[in-house]
Amino acid sequence: MAGTDRTKADAAALLPAGPAVVLVEPQLAENVGAVARAMANFALSDLRVVRAPGKTEAEGARVRSAGAHHILEAARHFDSIEEAIADLTLLFATTARGRGQAKPVDAPEAAARLMAQHAAGGGRVGLLFGRERTGLENDEIALASRVVTFPVNPAYASLNLAQAVLLVGYEWFKAATGGAPAFEMPTRSPPGTQAEIVALFAHLEGELDETGFFRSPEKRASMIRNIRNMIHRMDPSRQDLQTLHGIVAALAEGRPGPQGRGRTLLKPLKDPEEG
Amino acid sequence: MAGTDRTKADAAALLPAGPAVVLVEPQLAENVGAVARAMANFALSDLRVVRAPGKTEAEGARVRSAGAHHILEAARHFDSIEEAIADLTLLFATTARGRGQAKPVDAPEAAARLMAQHAAGGGRVGLLFGRERTGLENDEIALASRVVTFPVNPAYASLNLAQAVLLVGYEWFKAATGGAPAFEMPTRSPPGTQAEIVALFAHLEGELDETGFFRSPEKRASMIRNIRNMIHRMDPSRQDLQTLHGIVAALAEGRPGPQGRGRTLLKPLKDPEEG
Repeated sequence: MAGTDRTKADAAALLPAGPAVVLVEPQLAENVGAVARAMANFALSDLRVVRAPGKTEAEGARVRSAGAHHILEAARHFDSIEEAIADLTLLFATTARGRGQAKPVDAPEAAARLMAQHAAGGGRVGLLFGRERTGLENDEIALASRVVTFPVNPAYASLNLAQAVLLVGYEWFKAATGGAPAFEMPTRSPPGTQAEIVALFAHLEGELDETGFFRSPEKRASMIRNIRNMIHRMDPSRQDLQTLHGIVAALAEGRPGPQGRGRTLLKPLKDPEEG
Repeated sequence: MAGTDRTKADAAALLPAGPAVVLVEPQLAENVGAVARAMANFALSDLRVVRAPGKTEAEGARVRSAGAHHILEAARHFDSIEEAIADLTLLFATTARGRGQAKPVDAPEAAARLMAQHAAGGGRVGLLFGRERTGLENDEIALASRVVTFPVNPAYASLNLAQAVLLVGYEWFKAATGGAPAFEMPTRSPPGTQAEIVALFAHLEGELDETGFFRSPEKRASMIRNIRNMIHRMDPSRQDLQTLHGIVAALAEGRPGPQGRGRTLLKPLKDPEEG
Protein backbone atom coordinates (compact mmCIF):
# COMPACT_ATOMS: atom_id res chain seq x y z
CA MET A 1 0.00 0.00 0.00
CA ALA A 2 3.03 2.26 -0.37
CA GLY A 3 2.04 5.70 -1.56
CA THR A 4 -1.65 5.26 -0.81
CA ASP A 5 -3.49 8.13 0.78
CA ARG A 6 -7.09 7.37 1.63
CA THR A 7 -7.71 10.97 2.62
CA LYS A 8 -7.37 11.87 -1.04
CA ALA A 9 -10.29 9.66 -2.05
CA ASP A 10 -12.42 12.75 -2.47
CA ALA A 11 -10.20 14.03 -5.28
CA ALA A 12 -10.73 10.84 -7.27
CA ALA A 13 -14.46 11.02 -6.61
CA LEU A 14 -14.55 14.26 -8.60
CA LEU A 15 -13.43 12.50 -11.79
CA PRO A 16 -16.08 11.67 -14.42
CA ALA A 17 -17.38 8.09 -14.19
CA GLY A 18 -14.71 5.81 -15.60
CA PRO A 19 -15.44 2.95 -17.96
CA ALA A 20 -17.10 -0.20 -16.69
CA VAL A 21 -14.75 -3.20 -16.87
CA VAL A 22 -16.64 -6.25 -18.15
CA LEU A 23 -14.78 -9.55 -17.74
CA VAL A 24 -16.17 -12.35 -19.88
CA GLU A 25 -15.69 -15.79 -18.29
CA PRO A 26 -12.44 -15.03 -16.45
CA GLN A 27 -10.79 -18.33 -15.57
CA LEU A 28 -8.65 -17.53 -12.51
CA ALA A 29 -9.87 -15.73 -9.41
CA GLU A 30 -6.31 -14.40 -8.94
CA ASN A 31 -6.64 -12.54 -12.21
CA VAL A 32 -9.95 -11.04 -11.16
CA GLY A 33 -8.21 -9.79 -8.00
CA ALA A 34 -5.35 -8.32 -10.01
CA VAL A 35 -7.90 -6.59 -12.26
CA ALA A 36 -9.55 -5.03 -9.17
CA ARG A 37 -6.16 -3.74 -8.05
CA ALA A 38 -5.41 -2.23 -11.46
CA MET A 39 -8.86 -0.61 -11.50
CA ALA A 40 -8.28 0.92 -8.05
CA ASN A 41 -4.96 2.36 -9.21
CA PHE A 42 -6.78 4.42 -11.81
CA ALA A 43 -9.99 5.20 -9.95
CA LEU A 44 -12.19 2.74 -11.86
CA SER A 45 -14.87 1.08 -9.74
CA ASP A 46 -17.51 -0.58 -11.96
CA LEU A 47 -16.52 -4.25 -12.31
CA ARG A 48 -18.92 -6.62 -14.09
CA VAL A 49 -18.31 -10.34 -14.46
CA VAL A 50 -20.03 -12.59 -16.98
CA ARG A 51 -20.51 -16.30 -16.27
CA ALA A 52 -17.87 -16.66 -13.54
CA PRO A 53 -19.83 -17.06 -10.30
CA GLY A 54 -17.78 -16.96 -7.12
CA LYS A 55 -14.66 -15.57 -8.77
CA THR A 56 -14.89 -12.19 -7.03
CA GLU A 57 -15.48 -13.74 -3.59
CA ALA A 58 -12.64 -16.28 -3.81
CA GLU A 59 -9.72 -15.93 -1.42
CA GLY A 60 -7.29 -15.78 -4.37
CA ALA A 61 -9.09 -12.74 -5.70
CA ARG A 62 -9.00 -10.95 -2.35
CA VAL A 63 -5.29 -11.61 -1.88
CA ARG A 64 -4.28 -10.45 -5.34
CA SER A 65 -6.46 -7.35 -5.12
CA ALA A 66 -3.95 -5.96 -2.58
CA GLY A 67 -6.65 -4.20 -0.64
CA ALA A 68 -9.03 -3.27 -3.47
CA HIS A 69 -11.75 -5.26 -1.71
CA HIS A 70 -14.32 -2.53 -2.25
CA ILE A 71 -14.19 -3.18 -5.99
CA LEU A 72 -14.57 -6.94 -5.62
CA GLU A 73 -17.44 -6.52 -3.18
CA ALA A 74 -19.30 -4.11 -5.45
CA ALA A 75 -18.78 -6.29 -8.55
CA ARG A 76 -21.93 -7.45 -10.34
CA HIS A 77 -22.39 -10.87 -11.91
CA PHE A 78 -24.33 -11.59 -15.11
CA ASP A 79 -25.32 -14.65 -17.10
CA SER A 80 -24.87 -12.97 -20.48
CA ILE A 81 -22.82 -10.19 -22.01
CA GLU A 82 -26.01 -8.59 -23.30
CA GLU A 83 -27.26 -8.14 -19.72
CA ALA A 84 -23.87 -6.94 -18.49
CA ILE A 85 -23.64 -4.17 -21.11
CA ALA A 86 -27.33 -3.21 -21.33
CA ASP A 87 -26.93 0.31 -19.88
CA LEU A 88 -23.70 1.22 -21.67
CA THR A 89 -23.76 3.71 -24.52
CA LEU A 90 -20.25 3.17 -25.90
CA LEU A 91 -18.65 -0.25 -25.77
CA PHE A 92 -15.08 -1.18 -26.69
CA ALA A 93 -13.90 -4.77 -27.17
CA THR A 94 -10.27 -5.47 -26.32
CA THR A 95 -8.41 -7.91 -28.56
CA ALA A 96 -4.78 -8.85 -29.08
CA ARG A 97 -5.13 -9.74 -32.75
CA GLY A 98 -7.03 -8.42 -35.71
CA ARG A 99 -10.28 -10.31 -36.14
CA GLY A 100 -11.15 -9.03 -39.57
CA GLN A 101 -14.20 -7.15 -38.34
CA ALA A 102 -15.17 -3.90 -40.03
CA LYS A 103 -14.85 -1.93 -36.83
CA PRO A 104 -12.58 1.00 -36.00
CA VAL A 105 -9.46 -0.01 -34.06
CA ASP A 106 -7.92 2.31 -31.46
CA ALA A 107 -4.73 2.23 -29.43
CA PRO A 108 -5.48 2.73 -25.70
CA GLU A 109 -4.57 6.43 -25.76
CA ALA A 110 -7.01 7.26 -28.56
CA ALA A 111 -9.68 5.04 -27.00
CA ALA A 112 -9.25 6.85 -23.68
CA ARG A 113 -9.77 10.22 -25.34
CA LEU A 114 -13.00 8.94 -26.89
CA MET A 115 -14.09 7.51 -23.54
CA ALA A 116 -13.44 10.79 -21.74
CA GLN A 117 -15.33 12.76 -24.41
CA HIS A 118 -18.22 10.34 -24.35
CA ALA A 119 -18.42 10.35 -20.54
CA ALA A 120 -18.24 14.17 -20.49
CA GLY A 121 -21.31 14.17 -22.76
CA GLY A 122 -23.22 12.06 -20.24
CA GLY A 123 -22.60 8.68 -21.92
CA ARG A 124 -21.66 5.50 -20.10
CA VAL A 125 -18.59 3.71 -21.41
CA GLY A 126 -17.52 0.09 -21.01
CA LEU A 127 -14.70 -2.23 -21.99
CA LEU A 128 -15.10 -5.94 -22.77
CA PHE A 129 -12.20 -8.20 -21.79
CA GLY A 130 -12.12 -11.84 -22.89
CA ARG A 131 -10.93 -15.08 -21.37
CA GLU A 132 -7.26 -15.34 -20.35
CA ARG A 133 -6.38 -17.97 -22.96
CA THR A 134 -8.71 -17.36 -25.85
CA GLY A 135 -9.93 -13.79 -25.54
CA LEU A 136 -13.31 -12.76 -26.89
CA GLU A 137 -15.21 -14.72 -29.51
CA ASN A 138 -16.00 -13.02 -32.78
CA ASP A 139 -19.71 -12.75 -31.99
CA GLU A 140 -18.85 -11.11 -28.68
CA ILE A 141 -16.60 -8.56 -30.40
CA ALA A 142 -19.45 -7.78 -32.79
CA LEU A 143 -21.44 -6.43 -29.81
CA ALA A 144 -18.96 -3.56 -29.43
CA SER A 145 -18.77 -0.31 -31.35
CA ARG A 146 -15.02 -0.20 -31.49
CA VAL A 147 -11.95 -2.31 -30.81
CA VAL A 148 -9.03 -1.45 -28.50
CA THR A 149 -5.73 -3.17 -28.98
CA PHE A 150 -2.29 -2.62 -27.48
CA PRO A 151 0.93 -1.55 -29.16
CA VAL A 152 3.14 -4.40 -27.98
CA ASN A 153 6.27 -6.18 -29.09
CA PRO A 154 4.95 -8.48 -31.84
CA ALA A 155 7.55 -11.07 -30.83
CA TYR A 156 6.06 -11.28 -27.32
CA ALA A 157 2.51 -10.02 -27.28
CA SER A 158 1.13 -11.88 -24.25
CA LEU A 159 -0.36 -9.20 -22.03
CA ASN A 160 -2.23 -10.74 -19.15
CA LEU A 161 -5.76 -9.71 -18.25
CA ALA A 162 -4.82 -7.35 -15.41
CA GLN A 163 -2.05 -5.75 -17.49
CA ALA A 164 -4.56 -5.01 -20.25
CA VAL A 165 -6.93 -3.46 -17.70
CA LEU A 166 -4.00 -1.53 -16.20
CA LEU A 167 -2.99 0.03 -19.54
CA VAL A 168 -6.52 1.10 -20.45
CA GLY A 169 -7.10 2.40 -16.90
CA TYR A 170 -3.83 4.32 -17.02
CA GLU A 171 -4.71 5.98 -20.31
CA TRP A 172 -8.22 6.75 -19.09
CA PHE A 173 -6.84 8.35 -15.91
CA LYS A 174 -4.39 10.39 -18.00
CA ALA A 175 -7.19 11.57 -20.28
CA ALA A 176 -9.49 12.37 -17.34
CA THR A 177 -6.92 14.18 -15.21
CA GLY A 178 -4.53 15.66 -17.76
CA GLY A 179 -1.84 13.14 -16.86
CA ALA A 180 0.22 15.40 -14.62
CA PRO A 181 2.61 13.50 -12.38
CA ALA A 182 1.41 13.05 -8.81
CA PHE A 183 4.04 15.49 -7.53
CA GLU A 184 6.49 17.97 -8.99
CA MET A 185 9.98 19.18 -8.33
CA PRO A 186 9.78 20.99 -4.99
CA THR A 187 9.79 24.74 -5.04
CA ARG A 188 13.37 25.76 -4.58
CA SER A 189 14.79 28.98 -3.22
CA PRO A 190 14.26 31.88 -5.66
CA PRO A 191 16.17 31.58 -8.94
CA GLY A 192 19.48 33.45 -9.07
CA THR A 193 19.45 36.81 -10.81
CA GLN A 194 21.84 37.42 -13.68
CA ALA A 195 23.91 39.66 -11.37
CA GLU A 196 24.25 36.80 -8.87
CA ILE A 197 25.22 34.38 -11.64
CA VAL A 198 27.81 36.80 -13.01
CA ALA A 199 29.20 37.22 -9.49
CA LEU A 200 29.75 33.45 -9.34
CA PHE A 201 31.45 33.53 -12.76
CA ALA A 202 33.79 36.26 -11.47
CA HIS A 203 34.57 34.31 -8.30
CA LEU A 204 35.23 31.02 -10.08
CA GLU A 205 37.15 32.46 -13.01
CA GLY A 206 39.22 34.67 -10.69
CA GLU A 207 40.25 31.61 -8.68
CA LEU A 208 40.98 29.63 -11.82
CA ASP A 209 43.13 32.48 -13.16
CA GLU A 210 45.08 32.44 -9.89
CA THR A 211 45.86 28.75 -10.26
CA GLY A 212 46.98 29.03 -13.86
CA PHE A 213 44.05 26.80 -14.94
CA PHE A 214 43.79 28.60 -18.30
CA ARG A 215 47.19 27.55 -19.59
CA SER A 216 46.49 28.41 -23.19
CA PRO A 217 45.54 32.12 -23.45
CA GLU A 218 43.98 31.68 -26.89
CA LYS A 219 41.61 29.04 -25.53
CA ARG A 220 40.68 30.99 -22.41
CA ALA A 221 37.61 32.66 -23.91
CA SER A 222 36.07 29.46 -25.27
CA MET A 223 36.79 27.55 -22.06
CA ILE A 224 35.06 30.26 -20.05
CA ARG A 225 32.06 30.14 -22.37
CA ASN A 226 31.80 26.40 -21.80
CA ILE A 227 32.03 26.76 -18.03
CA ARG A 228 29.43 29.54 -18.00
CA ASN A 229 27.08 27.42 -20.12
CA MET A 230 27.48 24.50 -17.74
CA ILE A 231 26.44 26.71 -14.85
CA HIS A 232 23.49 28.10 -16.80
CA ARG A 233 22.28 24.59 -17.65
CA MET A 234 22.17 23.92 -13.91
CA ASP A 235 19.47 26.59 -13.67
CA PRO A 236 20.84 27.55 -10.23
CA SER A 237 18.67 28.94 -7.48
CA ARG A 238 20.03 31.68 -5.21
CA GLN A 239 20.83 29.00 -2.67
CA ASP A 240 22.60 26.85 -5.28
CA LEU A 241 24.76 29.87 -6.13
CA GLN A 242 25.69 30.29 -2.47
CA THR A 243 26.64 26.62 -2.33
CA LEU A 244 28.80 27.02 -5.45
CA HIS A 245 30.52 30.10 -3.98
CA GLY A 246 31.23 28.00 -0.90
CA ILE A 247 32.63 25.14 -2.97
CA VAL A 248 34.92 27.44 -4.95
CA ALA A 249 36.10 29.15 -1.79
CA ALA A 250 36.70 25.87 0.04
CA LEU A 251 38.67 24.40 -2.85
CA ALA A 252 40.75 27.56 -3.21
CA GLU A 253 41.33 27.87 0.52
CA GLY A 254 42.43 24.30 0.99
CA ARG A 255 44.76 24.43 -1.96
CA PRO A 256 48.35 23.79 -0.94
CA GLY A 257 51.39 25.38 -2.54
CA PRO A 258 52.36 28.98 -3.33
CA GLN A 259 48.80 30.12 -4.12
CA GLY A 260 47.20 28.56 -1.02
CA ARG A 261 45.94 31.54 0.86
CA GLY A 262 43.60 30.45 3.64
CA ARG A 263 41.01 33.10 2.71
CA THR A 264 38.04 33.63 0.41
CA LEU A 265 38.27 36.22 -2.34
CA LEU A 266 34.60 37.12 -2.41
CA LYS A 267 31.92 37.17 0.22
CA PRO A 268 28.94 34.82 -0.24
CA LEU A 269 25.79 36.52 -1.50
CA LYS A 270 24.25 36.43 1.93
CA ASP A 271 24.90 34.87 5.24
CA PRO A 272 24.65 31.06 5.02
CA GLU A 273 22.39 30.95 8.08
CA GLU A 274 19.74 32.80 6.12
CA GLY A 275 19.60 30.05 3.42
CA MET B 1 1.27 -16.74 -25.19
CA ALA B 2 -1.85 -15.61 -27.06
CA GLY B 3 -1.03 -13.13 -29.77
CA THR B 4 2.68 -13.84 -29.76
CA ASP B 5 4.45 -14.14 -33.07
CA ARG B 6 8.09 -15.10 -32.81
CA THR B 7 8.61 -14.59 -36.53
CA LYS B 8 8.14 -10.88 -35.91
CA ALA B 9 11.13 -10.70 -33.58
CA ASP B 10 13.11 -9.02 -36.34
CA ALA B 11 10.76 -6.04 -36.37
CA ALA B 12 11.37 -5.41 -32.66
CA ALA B 13 15.11 -5.78 -33.21
CA LEU B 14 15.01 -2.70 -35.44
CA LEU B 15 13.89 -0.48 -32.55
CA PRO B 16 16.47 1.72 -30.83
CA ALA B 17 17.94 0.20 -27.68
CA GLY B 18 15.33 0.51 -24.95
CA PRO B 19 16.13 1.62 -21.43
CA ALA B 20 17.95 -0.70 -19.05
CA VAL B 21 15.73 -1.78 -16.14
CA VAL B 22 17.73 -1.68 -12.88
CA LEU B 23 16.02 -3.41 -9.94
CA VAL B 24 17.47 -2.45 -6.57
CA GLU B 25 17.16 -5.27 -4.00
CA PRO B 26 13.92 -6.79 -5.32
CA GLN B 27 12.45 -8.94 -2.56
CA LEU B 28 10.36 -11.53 -4.41
CA ALA B 29 11.58 -13.66 -7.31
CA GLU B 30 8.00 -13.74 -8.62
CA ASN B 31 8.13 -9.98 -9.08
CA VAL B 32 11.42 -10.25 -10.96
CA GLY B 33 9.72 -12.76 -13.29
CA ALA B 34 6.73 -10.46 -13.78
CA VAL B 35 9.15 -7.62 -14.58
CA ALA B 36 10.81 -9.80 -17.26
CA ARG B 37 7.41 -10.49 -18.78
CA ALA B 38 6.51 -6.78 -18.85
CA MET B 39 9.88 -5.99 -20.42
CA ALA B 40 9.35 -8.59 -23.15
CA ASN B 41 5.93 -7.11 -23.94
CA PHE B 42 7.59 -3.86 -24.88
CA ALA B 43 10.81 -5.13 -26.43
CA LEU B 44 13.06 -4.24 -23.48
CA SER B 45 15.86 -6.71 -22.83
CA ASP B 46 18.50 -5.20 -20.53
CA LEU B 47 17.67 -6.32 -16.97
CA ARG B 48 20.12 -5.48 -14.18
CA VAL B 49 19.65 -6.59 -10.59
CA VAL B 50 21.41 -5.06 -7.59
CA ARG B 51 22.05 -7.13 -4.45
CA ALA B 52 19.49 -9.89 -5.10
CA PRO B 53 21.56 -12.95 -6.03
CA GLY B 54 19.60 -15.93 -7.27
CA LYS B 55 16.39 -14.00 -7.84
CA THR B 56 16.53 -14.30 -11.63
CA GLU B 57 17.26 -18.04 -11.55
CA ALA B 58 14.53 -18.92 -9.03
CA GLU B 59 11.66 -21.12 -10.18
CA GLY B 60 9.15 -18.45 -9.11
CA ALA B 61 10.78 -15.96 -11.47
CA ARG B 62 10.70 -18.38 -14.40
CA VAL B 63 7.04 -19.23 -13.86
CA ARG B 64 5.88 -15.63 -13.56
CA SER B 65 7.94 -14.54 -16.58
CA ALA B 66 5.44 -16.47 -18.76
CA GLY B 67 8.14 -17.49 -21.22
CA ALA B 68 10.38 -14.40 -21.07
CA HIS B 69 13.23 -16.68 -19.98
CA HIS B 70 15.67 -15.02 -22.37
CA ILE B 71 15.47 -11.83 -20.32
CA LEU B 72 16.01 -13.59 -17.00
CA GLU B 73 18.92 -15.59 -18.41
CA ALA B 74 20.62 -12.49 -19.83
CA ALA B 75 20.11 -10.47 -16.61
CA ARG B 76 23.24 -9.14 -14.93
CA HIS B 77 23.82 -8.98 -11.18
CA PHE B 78 25.70 -6.23 -9.37
CA ASP B 79 26.77 -5.53 -5.79
CA SER B 80 26.17 -1.79 -6.02
CA ILE B 81 23.95 0.60 -7.95
CA GLU B 82 27.02 2.54 -9.03
CA GLU B 83 28.36 -0.52 -10.86
CA ALA B 84 24.96 -1.35 -12.34
CA ILE B 85 24.53 2.11 -13.88
CA ALA B 86 28.17 2.83 -14.79
CA ASP B 87 27.67 2.83 -18.59
CA LEU B 88 24.34 4.71 -18.64
CA THR B 89 24.23 8.30 -19.85
CA LEU B 90 20.71 9.21 -18.70
CA LEU B 91 19.25 7.72 -15.55
CA PHE B 92 15.70 8.07 -14.23
CA ALA B 93 14.68 7.09 -10.70
CA THR B 94 11.08 5.88 -10.27
CA THR B 95 9.28 6.94 -7.13
CA ALA B 96 5.68 6.90 -5.93
CA ARG B 97 5.97 9.96 -3.72
CA GLY B 98 7.76 13.26 -3.88
CA ARG B 99 11.07 13.11 -2.06
CA GLY B 100 11.79 16.79 -1.96
CA GLN B 101 14.78 16.49 -4.23
CA ALA B 102 15.59 19.33 -6.62
CA LYS B 103 15.25 17.13 -9.66
CA PRO B 104 12.86 17.40 -12.60
CA VAL B 105 9.84 15.07 -12.31
CA ASP B 106 8.28 13.51 -15.42
CA ALA B 107 5.16 11.47 -16.02
CA PRO B 108 5.97 8.25 -17.94
CA GLU B 109 4.91 9.69 -21.29
CA ALA B 110 7.23 12.71 -21.06
CA ALA B 111 10.04 10.52 -19.70
CA ALA B 112 9.63 8.13 -22.63
CA ARG B 113 9.96 10.97 -25.12
CA LEU B 114 13.20 12.06 -23.44
CA MET B 115 14.43 8.46 -23.44
CA ALA B 116 13.70 8.03 -27.13
CA GLN B 117 15.43 11.32 -28.00
CA HIS B 118 18.43 10.48 -25.87
CA ALA B 119 18.73 6.97 -27.35
CA ALA B 120 18.39 8.37 -30.88
CA GLY B 121 21.40 10.58 -30.11
CA GLY B 122 23.46 7.53 -29.18
CA GLY B 123 22.93 7.75 -25.41
CA ARG B 124 22.18 4.83 -23.13
CA VAL B 125 19.15 5.22 -20.88
CA GLY B 126 18.27 3.42 -17.66
CA LEU B 127 15.53 3.31 -15.06
CA LEU B 128 16.04 2.62 -11.35
CA PHE B 129 13.27 0.74 -9.55
CA GLY B 130 13.32 0.34 -5.77
CA ARG B 131 12.29 -2.34 -3.33
CA GLU B 132 8.66 -3.52 -3.37
CA ARG B 133 7.85 -2.16 0.08
CA THR B 134 10.08 0.82 0.56
CA GLY B 135 11.14 1.96 -2.88
CA LEU B 136 14.44 3.74 -3.43
CA GLU B 137 16.34 5.48 -0.67
CA ASN B 138 16.98 9.19 -0.99
CA ASP B 139 20.70 8.71 -1.66
CA GLU B 140 19.84 6.25 -4.42
CA ILE B 141 17.45 8.73 -6.04
CA ALA B 142 20.20 11.35 -5.92
CA LEU B 143 22.20 9.20 -8.39
CA ALA B 144 19.62 9.84 -11.11
CA SER B 145 19.25 12.86 -13.36
CA ARG B 146 15.48 12.87 -13.28
CA VAL B 147 12.52 11.31 -11.52
CA VAL B 148 9.64 9.38 -13.11
CA THR B 149 6.39 9.03 -11.26
CA PHE B 150 2.99 7.72 -12.23
CA PRO B 151 -0.32 9.53 -12.48
CA VAL B 152 -2.40 7.25 -10.25
CA ASN B 153 -5.47 7.47 -8.08
CA PRO B 154 -4.14 9.18 -4.94
CA ALA B 155 -6.60 7.15 -2.86
CA TYR B 156 -5.03 3.91 -4.06
CA ALA B 157 -1.52 4.49 -5.33
CA SER B 158 0.03 1.06 -4.82
CA LEU B 159 1.47 0.09 -8.20
CA ASN B 160 3.47 -3.08 -7.95
CA LEU B 161 6.99 -3.37 -9.34
CA ALA B 162 6.02 -5.12 -12.57
CA GLN B 163 3.14 -2.71 -13.19
CA ALA B 164 5.54 0.23 -12.87
CA VAL B 165 7.91 -1.43 -15.36
CA LEU B 166 4.94 -2.20 -17.63
CA LEU B 167 3.78 1.43 -17.75
CA VAL B 168 7.23 2.83 -18.49
CA GLY B 169 7.86 0.08 -21.07
CA TYR B 170 4.50 0.78 -22.69
CA GLU B 171 5.23 4.49 -22.97
CA TRP B 172 8.73 3.81 -24.28
CA PHE B 173 7.37 1.43 -26.92
CA LYS B 174 4.77 4.03 -27.94
CA ALA B 175 7.48 6.71 -28.23
CA ALA B 176 9.82 4.41 -30.17
CA THR B 177 7.22 3.02 -32.58
CA GLY B 178 4.72 5.85 -32.88
CA GLY B 179 2.16 3.94 -30.83
CA ALA B 180 0.07 2.64 -33.72
CA PRO B 181 -2.19 -0.26 -32.78
CA ALA B 182 -0.85 -3.67 -33.76
CA PHE B 183 -3.52 -4.03 -36.44
CA GLU B 184 -6.11 -1.86 -38.10
CA MET B 185 -9.63 -2.16 -39.40
CA PRO B 186 -9.39 -4.56 -42.34
CA THR B 187 -9.54 -3.08 -45.80
CA ARG B 188 -13.14 -3.30 -46.83
CA SER B 189 -14.61 -3.36 -50.30
CA PRO B 190 -14.29 0.04 -52.03
CA PRO B 191 -16.30 2.83 -50.44
CA GLY B 192 -19.65 3.53 -52.03
CA THR B 193 -19.83 6.45 -54.44
CA GLN B 194 -22.35 9.22 -53.86
CA ALA B 195 -24.42 7.86 -56.77
CA GLU B 196 -24.56 4.44 -55.11
CA ILE B 197 -25.51 5.98 -51.77
CA VAL B 198 -28.24 8.07 -53.42
CA ALA B 199 -29.53 4.91 -55.13
CA LEU B 200 -29.93 3.30 -51.69
CA PHE B 201 -31.75 6.38 -50.41
CA ALA B 202 -34.13 6.13 -53.38
CA HIS B 203 -34.73 2.44 -52.81
CA LEU B 204 -35.34 2.76 -49.07
CA GLU B 205 -37.40 5.94 -49.22
CA GLY B 206 -39.46 4.56 -52.11
CA GLU B 207 -40.31 1.48 -50.07
CA LEU B 208 -41.08 3.57 -47.02
CA ASP B 209 -43.38 5.79 -49.07
CA GLU B 210 -45.21 2.67 -50.26
CA THR B 211 -45.86 1.55 -46.70
CA GLY B 212 -47.09 4.92 -45.54
CA PHE B 213 -44.15 5.19 -43.11
CA PHE B 214 -44.07 9.00 -43.47
CA ARG B 215 -47.48 9.63 -41.96
CA SER B 216 -46.95 13.31 -41.36
CA PRO B 217 -46.17 15.05 -44.67
CA GLU B 218 -44.69 18.12 -42.96
CA LYS B 219 -42.17 15.93 -41.10
CA ARG B 220 -41.19 13.84 -44.13
CA ALA B 221 -38.24 16.04 -45.14
CA SER B 222 -36.66 16.11 -41.70
CA MET B 223 -37.20 12.37 -41.18
CA ILE B 224 -35.50 11.68 -44.49
CA ARG B 225 -32.57 13.89 -43.54
CA ASN B 226 -32.17 11.93 -40.31
CA ILE B 227 -32.26 8.59 -42.10
CA ARG B 228 -29.75 9.76 -44.72
CA ASN B 229 -27.41 11.01 -41.99
CA MET B 230 -27.62 7.66 -40.21
CA ILE B 231 -26.56 5.91 -43.41
CA HIS B 232 -23.73 8.38 -43.99
CA ARG B 233 -22.42 7.85 -40.46
CA MET B 234 -22.16 4.17 -41.29
CA ASP B 235 -19.54 5.11 -43.92
CA PRO B 236 -20.84 2.26 -46.09
CA SER B 237 -18.63 0.36 -48.51
CA ARG B 238 -20.00 -0.72 -51.88
CA GLN B 239 -20.62 -4.15 -50.38
CA ASP B 240 -22.39 -2.66 -47.34
CA LEU B 241 -24.71 -0.82 -49.76
CA GLN B 242 -25.51 -4.07 -51.53
CA THR B 243 -26.31 -5.65 -48.18
CA LEU B 244 -28.58 -2.73 -47.32
CA HIS B 245 -30.39 -3.01 -50.67
CA GLY B 246 -30.88 -6.68 -49.91
CA ILE B 247 -32.26 -5.93 -46.44
CA VAL B 248 -34.71 -3.33 -47.75
CA ALA B 249 -35.82 -5.66 -50.54
CA ALA B 250 -36.23 -8.62 -48.20
CA LEU B 251 -38.24 -6.63 -45.68
CA ALA B 252 -40.46 -5.15 -48.42
CA GLU B 253 -40.93 -8.48 -50.14
CA GLY B 254 -41.86 -10.36 -47.02
CA ARG B 255 -44.32 -7.71 -45.93
CA PRO B 256 -47.85 -9.05 -45.62
CA GLY B 257 -50.99 -7.10 -46.39
CA PRO B 258 -52.20 -5.05 -49.38
CA GLN B 259 -48.73 -3.68 -50.26
CA GLY B 260 -46.90 -7.06 -50.11
CA ARG B 261 -45.66 -7.53 -53.65
CA GLY B 262 -43.17 -10.42 -53.82
CA ARG B 263 -40.70 -8.41 -55.93
CA THR B 264 -37.75 -6.02 -55.54
CA LEU B 265 -38.06 -2.50 -56.85
CA LEU B 266 -34.41 -1.95 -57.69
CA LYS B 267 -31.68 -4.30 -58.76
CA PRO B 268 -28.64 -4.67 -56.48
CA LEU B 269 -25.61 -2.67 -57.63
CA LYS B 270 -23.86 -5.76 -58.88
CA ASP B 271 -24.27 -9.47 -58.76
CA PRO B 272 -23.87 -10.69 -55.15
CA GLU B 273 -21.42 -13.38 -56.32
CA GLU B 274 -18.92 -10.66 -57.29
CA GLY B 275 -18.80 -9.27 -53.73
